[in-house]
Amino acid sequence: MEHDPNLRITLVGAGTIGLSFAAFHLSHLNSPSQLTIYDTRPDLKSYVLESLPKFFNDHSNPISFADINVATSLRDAVSTAHIIQESGPENLQIKQALWKEVEKHAPRDALLWSSTSGIPASQQSQDMQDKTRLLVVHPYNPPHVMPLLELVPAPTTSQNVIERTQEFWRARGRVPIHLKKEITGFVANRLAFALLRESIHLVQAGVVSVEELDTIVESSMGPRWAVAGPFKSYHAGGGPGGLEGFFKNIGQTVQECWADAGQVNVGDGWEEEVFKQTSDAYGLVDTKERDRITKRVLNAIGEEKEKRI
Amino acid sequence: MEHDPNLRITLVGAGTIGLSFAAFHLSHLNSPSQLTIYDTRPDLKSYVLESLPKFFNDHSNPISFADINVATSLRDAVSTAHIIQESGPENLQIKQALWKEVEKHAPRDALLWSSTSGIPASQQSQDMQDKTRLLVVHPYNPPHVMPLLELVPAPTTSQNVIERTQEFWRARGRVPIHLKKEITGFVANRLAFALLRESIHLVQAGVVSVEELDTIVESSMGPRWAVAGPFKSYHAGGGPGGLEGFFKNIGQTVQECWADAGQVNVGDGWEEEVFKQTSDAYGLVDTKERDRITKRVLNAIGEEKEKRI
Repeated sequence: MEHDPNLRITLVGAGTIGLSFAAFHLSHLNSPSQLTIYDTRPDLKSYVLESLPKFFNDHSNPISFADINVATSLRDAVSTAHIIQESGPENLQIKQALWKEVEKHAPRDALLWSSTSGIPASQQSQDMQDKTRLLVVHPYNPPHVMPLLELVPAPTTSQNVIERTQEFWRARGRVPIHLKKEITGFVANRLAFALLRESIHLVQAGVVSVEELDTIVESSMGPRWAVAGPFKSYHAGGGPGGLEGFFKNIGQTVQECWADAGQVNVGDGWEEEVFKQTSDAYGLVDTKERDRITKRVLNAIGEEKEKRI
Repeated sequence: MEHDPNLRITLVGAGTIGLSFAAFHLSHLNSPSQLTIYDTRPDLKSYVLESLPKFFNDHSNPISFADINVATSLRDAVSTAHIIQESGPENLQIKQALWKEVEKHAPRDALLWSSTSGIPASQQSQDMQDKTRLLVVHPYNPPHVMPLLELVPAPTTSQNVIERTQEFWRARGRVPIHLKKEITGFVANRLAFALLRESIHLVQAGVVSVEELDTIVESSMGPRWAVAGPFKSYHAGGGPGGLEGFFKNIGQTVQECWADAGQVNVGDGWEEEVFKQTSDAYGLVDTKERDRITKRVLNAIGEEKEKRI
């Protein structure tokens, strides 16, 4: 599929995630006319024309955004699409109704993807006739920058659909990871939220400020984990003994931290102070600059990985 | 102090951390003769001469390692030092005895630093006459590469000692963060271990493999957090609403992940499978390559930050 020069992609939902995906796809299609965007907002065409160029740093970008199809009916949007990717509101009823309707009008072998960060495919597909076609393709925000896609099929999703989805993203230099189970929050968010919880606790306990905590992460595990994930890092940290050696050396400290964290309740009353410190420290973050630097980091790592091959 | 061309640094303990600090200091001293290494191993001189060059990628490095002082008595090692940095075994009794002895022979205003990852300065200094001088200066491994130093004073450590220590590291382009309380595992390890715990749980639950989990982190929060820490990232993720807006949008998913993780017990039985998957995936990690790529990442970020100023 990834070699088909006539591939047609339809995006349902023109929020931040939808538009970021649009920016990604536009960089990988032969023509903007292969992209269709559907949303219920009445000013869709002018909104898309105004918003999309912001995702492209290079102002000499030759993409003629006006060639993008903007659909005002779902039927028209999906009837000839090869891929239909949903980035709508996080609402189960809306998604169930959407897929029921999409199924009526889309080609039989079109891939159906949801960008949801929390509603499993098995729930979204409940009113569909054919439950083999839908899976979650959850990006790490923003998807036009970040390589990760979490593919989270329902138990009913066919192997063929999973494989075609993996193939699509791999062919475009992205990193699709197939999660073997539907689990609350999927993997990336669960990991990040576990660290966030401990972060909130440490600020609340007065050990460091919000900004100091961010600086700690930016100066240690951020750059480290950009290069080698946690298991690989600690496996290296254990020397010839590997991960097991690491736990022999420092396992007691690990257990003590876990035990200590296990008693932490960050459920109540932390919000006001943490929100205030964060706003005071950062105001409105310049995400364009952040994304530019992140791209440099990813490019540097990508170049080094190519050297290895 | 950072401008003193005659600064003398003594390192106690020539393990991996001690030698990595030696490599860092050698790059910032005017002469290797300003560095003294003390360790009880009998082959210390030949061991140091053999091991240290491995920390320098550039083989044309002009450092004459033979000029480094290698001391065979603690008294000789510390008697004229401005800074005494301990990276010995993680054993309270050994450290208490060490500082008691160091105090007898070191100049009155020498800074006393411990690299410990777990034993608080307040415990280490128990047998000292003057408890104002010692603090923990905990690196993120390996210290010749990673910018972070966690400064963890005892309640008795003087403000002046903390400030001189901060000044030393800042003048050398490092990132010293002063932790306001002595807490188990300090900050960086607590954060990393919180994420590690959830990682182990997800592998144990069969959601992803060790290698897939590492790939997820390397493709998402690793590069993101190298550029903007967790609070700043989610503050940006909330758009104009900031961190508070983020929690309004996705707070329920965050809470669900936390609640789910709170029931996790990774205390028993996970080790064999996780150790095996890690060894199978990585064998012996090439840390030299990892460190080289990490330096590129840090340099790229550093260059971008300078552009901003």
